[in-house]
Amino acid sequence: MTESEQLERRLLDEIMTIAVIDVHSHVPHDNAYAKSLRDLLGYHYFTELAHSAGMSREVIAEENPDEAMLPALVEAMAALDNTVQYGWMIELARELFGFEHRRLTRENWQALDQAVREKAKEPKRAQEILCKSSIEKVFLTNAFDDELKGINQDIYVPSLRADALVFELTDPDVRTSLSEVTGVEIGTTTDLREALEKVLRRFMARKAASVTVSLPPQFKIFPVVESDMDAAVGKAVRNKPLSAAETATLRAGVMFSLAELCQEFGIPMQIMSGVLRDAYRHGVPQGTDLPVAGATLQTLLPLFNAFPEVTCCVSVLSDSQSQELASYGWIIGNVVVSGHWWYHTIPSYIERDLTARLQSVPKTKLIGYYSDMYKLEFGLPKFNMYRRVLARVLARDMVQSGRGTEDDAIKVARFLLRENACRIFGV
Amino acid sequence: MTESEQLERRLLDEIMTIAVIDVHSHVPHDNAYAKSLRDLLGYHYFTELAHSAGMSREVIAEENPDEAMLPALVEAMAALDNTVQYGWMIELARELFGFEHRRLTRENWQALDQAVREKAKEPKRAQEILCKSSIEKVFLTNAFDDELKGINQDIYVPSLRADALVFELTDPDVRTSLSEVTGVEIGTTTDLREALEKVLRRFMARKAASVTVSLPPQFKIFPVVESDMDAAVGKAVRNKPLSAAETATLRAGVMFSLAELCQEFGIPMQIMSGVLRDAYRHGVPQGTDLPVAGATLQTLLPLFNAFPEVTCCVSVLSDSQSQELASYGWIIGNVVVSGHWWYHTIPSYIERDLTARLQSVPKTKLIGYYSDMYKLEFGLPKFNMYRRVLARVLARDMVQSGRGTEDDAIKVARFLLRENACRIFGV
Amino acid sequence: MTESEQLERRLLDEIMTIAVIDVHSHVPHDNAYAKSLRDLLGYHYFTELAHSAGMSREVIAEENPDEAMLPALVEAMAALDNTVQYGWMIELARELFGFEHRRLTRENWQALDQAVREKAKEPKRAQEILCKSSIEKVFLTNAFDDELKGINQDIYVPSLRADALVFELTDPDVRTSLSEVTGVEIGTTTDLREALEKVLRRFMARKAASVTVSLPPQFKIFPVVESDMDAAVGKAVRNKPLSAAETATLRAGVMFSLAELCQEFGIPMQIMSGVLRDAYRHGVPQGTDLPVAGATLQTLLPLFNAFPEVTCCVSVLSDSQSQELASYGWIIGNVVVSGHWWYHTIPSYIERDLTARLQSVPKTKLIGYYSDMYKLEFGLPKFNMYRRVLARVLARDMVQSGRGTEDDAIKVARFLLRENACRIFGV
Repeated sequence: MTESEQLERRLLDEIMTIAVIDVHSHVPHDNAYAKSLRDLLGYHYFTELAHSAGMSREVIAEENPDEAMLPALVEAMAALDNTVQYGWMIELARELFGFEHRRLTRENWQALDQAVREKAKEPKRAQEILCKSSIEKVFLTNAFDDELKGINQDIYVPSLRADALVFELTDPDVRTSLSEVTGVEIGTTTDLREALEKVLRRFMARKAASVTVSLPPQFKIFPVVESDMDAAVGKAVRNKPLSAAETATLRAGVMFSLAELCQEFGIPMQIMSGVLRDAYRHGVPQGTDLPVAGATLQTLLPLFNAFPEVTCCVSVLSDSQSQELASYGWIIGNVVVSGHWWYHTIPSYIERDLTARLQSVPKTKLIGYYSDMYKLEFGLPKFNMYRRVLARVLARDMVQSGRGTEDDAIKVARFLLRENACRIFGV
Repeated sequence: MTESEQLERRLLDEIMTIAVIDVHSHVPHDNAYAKSLRDLLGYHYFTELAHSAGMSREVIAEENPDEAMLPALVEAMAALDNTVQYGWMIELARELFGFEHRRLTRENWQALDQAVREKAKEPKRAQEILCKSSIEKVFLTNAFDDELKGINQDIYVPSLRADALVFELTDPDVRTSLSEVTGVEIGTTTDLREALEKVLRRFMARKAASVTVSLPPQFKIFPVVESDMDAAVGKAVRNKPLSAAETATLRAGVMFSLAELCQEFGIPMQIMSGVLRDAYRHGVPQGTDLPVAGATLQTLLPLFNAFPEVTCCVSVLSDSQSQELASYGWIIGNVVVSGHWWYHTIPSYIERDLTARLQSVPKTKLIGYYSDMYKLEFGLPKFNMYRRVLARVLARDMVQSGRGTEDDAIKVARFLLRENACRIFGV
Repeated sequence: MTESEQLERRLLDEIMTIAVIDVHSHVPHDNAYAKSLRDLLGYHYFTELAHSAGMSREVIAEENPDEAMLPALVEAMAALDNTVQYGWMIELARELFGFEHRRLTRENWQALDQAVREKAKEPKRAQEILCKSSIEKVFLTNAFDDELKGINQDIYVPSLRADALVFELTDPDVRTSLSEVTGVEIGTTTDLREALEKVLRRFMARKAASVTVSLPPQFKIFPVVESDMDAAVGKAVRNKPLSAAETATLRAGVMFSLAELCQEFGIPMQIMSGVLRDAYRHGVPQGTDLPVAGATLQTLLPLFNAFPEVTCCVSVLSDSQSQELASYGWIIGNVVVSGHWWYHTIPSYIERDLTARLQSVPKTKLIGYYSDMYKLEFGLPKFNMYRRVLARVLARDMVQSGRGTEDDAIKVARFLLRENACRIFGV
């Protein structure tokens, strides 16, 4: 090993000991780990890539039994064995299930499936996975009407997912559910705000740590005129169709109300910006959305400006916004630059973004990475992917460039993987 | 050599043996290689860069004789001897004409000119160039009214260039030519579709392998309303000026018709997206177009969604769209990520894009590179540029990162340089 | 040291001897260097990053005395000790003031403050700083009503900053000042053009070398209709509110007039494109502006096309425009690609852009770097940052890739740091 490789290795070894706070996942707290191989291979990264490479959607239909679905999916996945996503599967299979092959095949999937089933029966399985992954806490994604019961708060941190509140209030089912969970009949803007506040109170009582929302590209947030908001809410509750302007008002109004509540309750917003939903008509479930090149965060400035006390942890989906986001973190006090999201959670993008962020944004304003995972097992390979990039960037661009010592580098890693999250989310 | 360099070298040696399918060029099949140095230095990359660096356009005027044009151009090119484009010329001069200097000068161009003239007289010159370049087949760019006669199909693959059909139907000459070549008098939408079908039939009879079109940034493709299309066609055929909306309808309508025909005949579309034509008023021929930062592929989604059975090999011109394109290849079944086009065909951009593509897109959905050349000689340096980047990326990011073995890496290279093209285009 | 590191070191040693022409700074010629530490730490990069990391704006209020301000700012800056901006401060403190610590602390700032105060008293301090920085000449940023007196033209080069003329003519104070300095009462377009010409004549008499302007993203420049311009000027001089279209006309008209004057007087324009002013409401002074992802230079094409004889040295603020700018330099004769501006003046962005520029743009069309500094001391660490990247890129991508020899590489460096500026600006 060269000196440079040795340095990188030493940094990585230290980084591996940092107990991560994972600020965004979709793990169901009561079904957190895989019970069978299907639970793992059902991750949309695999199904969408396999489908994109030619696999029929029928393969992954719920009614298709494991014995038919798994070999077909495994076979289709050969077309993507060059990708890092494929690498996640192999790494977790090896580290968590003792799988010893470099590739999944029609011949070896059964043994892995068996291993997953066996491991699932072990006590404290969630804790064991997290321990092996060096992850201490995992944020959940909870719908506003989630019961929030039985959550093991040693491990999990509730977080309100606000998308339905921002985008689906014109859906009577959503409003009904909101009324049921809050006891507020929603007829006016005042009612709506009361309901939102009750939702937040419920979440705060369960120690929720953030409000999270994903936004389309160029989503316009603006201070709404009260009478416009009344008109928009009025139409929505009477199931009348809203004009584009009314829809925009309703959504911006809810975003402002949520930000006010974040301020009142002292919690941050997590804003994931730039996803074009339902763009690909023939995709598999969760495999139909896309980034949009050329999008900007400029339309979110009214929110950042109006609520300087509300910390906004911001992620973007399009690579064309990477530097813009870093610049926002650079000058805007309440913007924290967070993670590497979805289509951007690929080592080459991470390395570029991380290098630029560490060169230009205060180390206290960076959330290094979050898993965005649906099953706990994926925390290991996804964070390991990030940790390797982090070790390399710190070695080359901080220690070897002379911007900091090895100790400085480890301290920076602690900020990115743990301490900033602890401070910002109060966990 | 370090171990890492040895690995890269071994991979490159293997990659050099792969017989390339070059899916896009402008080579004239009956005048495919240079007869003199002017044929080589006339490549727009040299004339536009030399002009940009201060050379008068008059230097390259057709009436300016070689003895005046060549030394002036060679001298002007000194300003760009730092560029990779200049490097292409030196590499091909060395490899194909025994030129031994590092730079072209007023003193040495004559000998090179002489060598080009001598070599041009040798039998099987095209085959020899391709053999030295490790290229097996070269796609042509054929206008819809091209005679398609006398094409040596051992080497060349016809491909319909559809730009005139999409963008110039309001030009009476184009319509006349279309009528002549198809025997269809164009008065209505139905006539137009019949003419387009006849064009395709002619091309299919000549074993054409694709329909290729270059599109401006943000080109809107949408399913046209039949009566709107009739109105637009009606105006066009009567030489009446079309409104912006009618122009958009006509173009989108033709694109949809072409896609239907691609589906009917089972051939792919090659879509090169994002060129702003005639942007620079003072440029040399072919040196007046530009990329547009911030453009998006979103406007092409209706096409990808409407024709899931038509494979679309997509290239972009703006670096700001690189990740968007990779994401399209990642989830959209009929989108293949193709090459590194024009202003983007520079090693630093190629390396970044290739790394990200290999990390995130199935290996079966990548066309590695095409030459876009006007003379066969440029295939050698352009593909060699690509091959070096490919060897480096595979060495570092696949083999050394542990994502694959050396054999895996070579297999990936075969997909990118040859096998995907064979499968997708049926050659 | 590896061979590669030795090469890089040799190149850097040579590069350090090149006497730089710094084509853009905000140095006040009569208060050019720091009199105390506050003058250095007051640089907006530090105040905005410290504020972004949590420091109150009150810390840097003018009335807050050094003894309170400095330790508070120094303490806040600990949050950004990972950044290259922080590194600038440490490097200049070491190289220019003998500071020996790796970090600024509450314990060591006083000694540095003292050293700055002592050094300020030495004769020929400006010359000494520039000599240590290997900088020969520094461009100034002079307002149109600047007196331009007592400028030491051995060191400084005046440059007209045109922002107020382009964007603030509706401000009566600006017009009054323009009248006073030119003796022209402005009532009509003709008056305005006469005033602009007189401004330029004054500047030319003082050997001004360029007209510099910073533009918002997507700024529209177009040839104005004379009667529209008359109407817009007419409203402006009568203090009537202008419509958006009139504002655009006025601004475009002034830009065209300035370009005509640049042509008449034979000087270049420096165009810094893409800054969104006053975007962050709570920022510190000079810490409220942002880049906008997805912006394009396309709207500036009418200017480049209308004045092919006026050299335009263009910078962009958004990373999403990097390749677009390189492409403009590649084909447009009067576009020179200039520097790495503001939020983009970070090694990782510089390295990417520089690599692509050196691969694709004639070496005569690149201004490597400018300092944008407010005090002379920052020229040293900012140019050193650039020089290190330049040495690395030349070593790897020119010499080791075989595109040029070591001598070629040094020649390229001379073009970028000195010779192109000398030729283009006539200094």
